[in-house]
Amino acid sequence: MRIVALPEILAAIDEDEITALIEDGFRRFSAGGADVMAVGHLQFPDALGDCHVKGASLRGDDIFAIKVATSFYRNPAIGLNSGNGFIAIASAVTGEVQAILHDEGQLTDLRTALGGAIAARAIARRDSKVLGIIGSGSQAKLQARAIQRTLGIEELLVWARDPGRAAAVGGEVVSLPELAARADLIVTTTPSTVPHLTVEMARPGMRIVAVGADMPGKNEIAAGLMAQARIVVDSRVQCIDHGDTASAIAAGLIDGSALIELGELLTAPIDFGDDEIVVADLTGVAIQDVQIAKSVWSRIGRG
Amino acid sequence: MRIVALPEILAAIDEDEITALIEDGFRRFSAGGADVMAVGHLQFPDALGDCHVKGASLRGDDIFAIKVATSFYRNPAIGLNSGNGFIAIASAVTGEVQAILHDEGQLTDLRTALGGAIAARAIARRDSKVLGIIGSGSQAKLQARAIQRTLGIEELLVWARDPGRAAAVGGEVVSLPELAARADLIVTTTPSTVPHLTVEMARPGMRIVAVGADMPGKNEIAAGLMAQARIVVDSRVQCIDHGDTASAIAAGLIDGSALIELGELLTAPIDFGDDEIVVADLTGVAIQDVQIAKSVWSRIGRG
Repeated sequence: MRIVALPEILAAIDEDEITALIEDGFRRFSAGGADVMAVGHLQFPDALGDCHVKGASLRGDDIFAIKVATSFYRNPAIGLNSGNGFIAIASAVTGEVQAILHDEGQLTDLRTALGGAIAARAIARRDSKVLGIIGSGSQAKLQARAIQRTLGIEELLVWARDPGRAAAVGGEVVSLPELAARADLIVTTTPSTVPHLTVEMARPGMRIVAVGADMPGKNEIAAGLMAQARIVVDSRVQCIDHGDTASAIAAGLIDGSALIELGELLTAPIDFGDDEIVVADLTGVAIQDVQIAKSVWSRIGRG
Repeated sequence: MRIVALPEILAAIDEDEITALIEDGFRRFSAGGADVMAVGHLQFPDALGDCHVKGASLRGDDIFAIKVATSFYRNPAIGLNSGNGFIAIASAVTGEVQAILHDEGQLTDLRTALGGAIAARAIARRDSKVLGIIGSGSQAKLQARAIQRTLGIEELLVWARDPGRAAAVGGEVVSLPELAARADLIVTTTPSTVPHLTVEMARPGMRIVAVGADMPGKNEIAAGLMAQARIVVDSRVQCIDHGDTASAIAAGLIDGSALIELGELLTAPIDFGDDEIVVADLTGVAIQDVQIAKSVWSRIGRG
């Protein structure tokens, strides 16, 4: 077994290869070709922290992965990153642990951003030029970069509660209603429990990638807006349980059977009408962790 | 972050300290002082393998642990142990990963054996002299050793499907009915899906520690025998879901509300009547992994 430290991991990242592997992973997952563990959660209320554990194996692969990721929100005040953790890679033939990718949460950040870009490309209108980012954390910046890299974005709008932090994302700082009115594609990246995007902000052709509401209780999009949208989810099982989709289902405004899984959409693309509202609700699926770990580990092996 | 390899782990084991910590962990768990993750499972049917992930934090502790353990049953044929895995230790204050105890499954084996010995001491009749072990795998040997060390055992009986392997456990190889009739305390350690201990074998004062049936579908004790017993479980939540207790509940023969949790029993011992049948159904709880990891890691830190 080998520990791989962060610098070696970062040197082994190939975003195009990882993106292709994650797309392939979503397709195989939605086609029933993956065994995905129930997500494990631990809470540390006194330290404002949480830990989640995800794991999966893709049928036919010779390795699988288990990811441990922690977020402790008081860390920045003492000069530490809030994110930490690792991805363990083990043989699917003998169970032997081959490597601990000690990514300190960075592979989770990257696979989340690339997942957002994959979903953005799958639901965006062809003429999308204006990207609106809600939030100012690391995912705000990573999503902006990944989606600008993927789509022909010409303009970046940003809203965050703290305008100074919003400016640091890059682009033009605007109000929420202005962002909702002008952006061709909106990405929500905050841990809010109160929706930023309200029913009043709904307009024809709106496209939203929701990556912030990844835990039970978090919610960035009003249920009444979700009710007007076609909804793409990364995982039906997870999205019915938590995030914006779960909130709208709990409100009785949408029906779980109408959800489209991202892997299905990638296999059989849908030509959404230009007036349709489409939301891609992403909670993060273990196959993303497996695929990014496979890419990094195989490149280190090829070394 | 540090990887601790198996030899250093084995050198840091103090069974008395670990036993005391695990008992304390069971008490705190049953008193609501632990946050325990849902157990994660992955199956590898082609390789006859499985992986399970357990994690927990005990309130007030400054570290917590996540355990990954694999069992691949074809490994011995190619000269490898079937068990593998590690326990990760992280700070409960910052989430930083401090250590990977690369125990290759051996800490799981040991904490399971010590859990069995703890349960055995809690339910055994005072005059117990004859220990009966069902099975011939590593847990058969470890449970025999741990329980002989704990109770005043004078005689060891063993039954396993393969008499040659049964002999290797040590003690006298007997038939199942003879073992059931003669043993003061029986430990079941097999992955059977068909009960070894039948209703016909029931007798007053029977005491059974069941450690084999740790996964949905596994079953070593007939539901009709369970129905005659007072049942102690390591975790109400887990035992209602899988193992011998779950099978008996599914058969409508026992009621989940009558279960006694081991941590409750350790806090408030019960003087079981000499004619009562008592079963301790153990599925393995993450607090055992946390406590054994804490002991090993603290002794390594102490140098």
